[in-house]
Amino acid sequence: MTKVVLGIDIGGTNTVFGLIDNTGTIHYSEQIPTHGDQPPTDIVDRLSEKVHSILNNKMEFELTGIGVGAPNGNHFTGMIQDPPNLSWGNLDINSLLAETFSCHVKLTNDANAAAMGEKRFGIAKEMNDFVVITLGTGLGSGIFSGGKIMYGHDGMAGEMGHLSLDPEGRKCTCGLRGCLEMYASANGMRKTVQEFQNANPDDEFLSSLDNGNIDGRVIDRAVDEGIESAKALYEYTGDKLAMGLSLAATILSPEAFIFYGGYSQAGDRLLNPARKALDSYLMENLKGKVKILQSGLPHGQAGILGAASLIWT
Amino acid sequence: MTKVVLGIDIGGTNTVFGLIDNTGTIHYSEQIPTHGDQPPTDIVDRLSEKVHSILNNKMEFELTGIGVGAPNGNHFTGMIQDPPNLSWGNLDINSLLAETFSCHVKLTNDANAAAMGEKRFGIAKEMNDFVVITLGTGLGSGIFSGGKIMYGHDGMAGEMGHLSLDPEGRKCTCGLRGCLEMYASANGMRKTVQEFQNANPDDEFLSSLDNGNIDGRVIDRAVDEGIESAKALYEYTGDKLAMGLSLAATILSPEAFIFYGGYSQAGDRLLNPARKALDSYLMENLKGKVKILQSGLPHGQAGILGAASLIWT
Repeated sequence: MTKVVLGIDIGGTNTVFGLIDNTGTIHYSEQIPTHGDQPPTDIVDRLSEKVHSILNNKMEFELTGIGVGAPNGNHFTGMIQDPPNLSWGNLDINSLLAETFSCHVKLTNDANAAAMGEKRFGIAKEMNDFVVITLGTGLGSGIFSGGKIMYGHDGMAGEMGHLSLDPEGRKCTCGLRGCLEMYASANGMRKTVQEFQNANPDDEFLSSLDNGNIDGRVIDRAVDEGIESAKALYEYTGDKLAMGLSLAATILSPEAFIFYGGYSQAGDRLLNPARKALDSYLMENLKGKVKILQSGLPHGQAGILGAASLIWT
Repeated sequence: MTKVVLGIDIGGTNTVFGLIDNTGTIHYSEQIPTHGDQPPTDIVDRLSEKVHSILNNKMEFELTGIGVGAPNGNHFTGMIQDPPNLSWGNLDINSLLAETFSCHVKLTNDANAAAMGEKRFGIAKEMNDFVVITLGTGLGSGIFSGGKIMYGHDGMAGEMGHLSLDPEGRKCTCGLRGCLEMYASANGMRKTVQEFQNANPDDEFLSSLDNGNIDGRVIDRAVDEGIESAKALYEYTGDKLAMGLSLAATILSPEAFIFYGGYSQAGDRLLNPARKALDSYLMENLKGKVKILQSGLPHGQAGILGAASLIWT
């Protein structure tokens, strides 16, 4: 029998789960839609069906625990606390999963899980002070300080998505204005496209984008083809991102910011404008010292690996 | 013989030193001017004369080491790195003191030293995640995360004084604009007084202030007497301070911000406006959860106690 942990990475749009042993080998993984507008039992039932079907078919696996990364997941309480992009309110996910799977469950924030995955198996193996930024529907951050995840006194540290860059800026779901996540995320890009469309009604590329349903890959291809208005979208976004990173760097002095998540697939199209802008927002002592990197782990792996490692450690 | 450590807290204007045993008892302490415009040998010579005179007079003390807190003091390198308010450039203070006193020397940032003092002997004894803000000539911060000082990957974490609140704001010595320290510090108050004087040339109280040499106690007394323009100075400063604290709280989720240093003697005159403004800058999840406290240790003690504890731990 191979002992495996079920690692679950719950996102605003999609959820990835995997069966992982304690060497980090992923024996099975799959991505399913989260359906955050449905009650949480919906996704738990679908997960249960899929996982139990695999366990029953492949009798060599023994499930020893479940590690979960989720937006607003609180390691201290085991509660998902009213995540802005899911309609679940305050959810005792640990109890729900423990009842369904009859095993031990540990929870952390989705960005913390990704950071733990990068530390144990990814690009941050040799780093003790770094930040993983998850770019998806929103923007999350998981912070390592002195080789350990920073939880803050209540488990809720690392809310970089809600650094307010401009008190007159875009209205955020958290009650503030100008939050980093309102610019650098899929939600933010939708707002940016809309503003750019309004300001440039004759631009052919911008007009071609369906603002209700933007596929980042369409913008990426347009950048690769040299379309200026597509490049301008990422330059605007990269500049806002750099402004947020500079605030975090001033407090944390990290070795690197590591980008992870669906929207980070844009890669250097987004990160190069951010790298270019970052120094202009940093104090003299920090200029040129903070790396901006992309996760080297295959898409979706850092989250489930980090979530699973909650059980091993 | 009582084994003592020499704890030194170097500030932009004054330096405090003390002979402290490993129970935290301060057997002797004194404040002397830093004279940051002189070469560093000036203050080291004055310290040496004073300390050796005490040690020679009171034969019961054995000096076992020196702990130093200094602006831009780097625990990893033992160097004071070009502090903005001292004309010392990059200084190997550890070697200079080790030669002069023939003993072991450890260095950290002045705000880190104050945070270590608060953790070991002060108001933060029971806290694991908190921030000490030193208000003096400038603004420094020492951050505890999970019960340990946060150093960042290069020893330079915690530069909250250089959080840029406004890219069009006051020009800072670090090369940026709108840095928190340009508002909430003795230097910042001088600029605020000047702006308020220019905007209100007929205000009797503001006109009475000598802008080249502002004594905070004069403003404090005016607040206590109910003078509106004095209260307005602290309301303006408290608002900027709250804006900076909100950015740090979003990243760190600390239990408290603890204020320490000469300029923090203003106490609630400054901290109440900051408390009042803080919630308006915090996301919904954090509102009402972050305390703003004043150091309970007598003036100057947290810095030398924390610096000395570098040797004991």
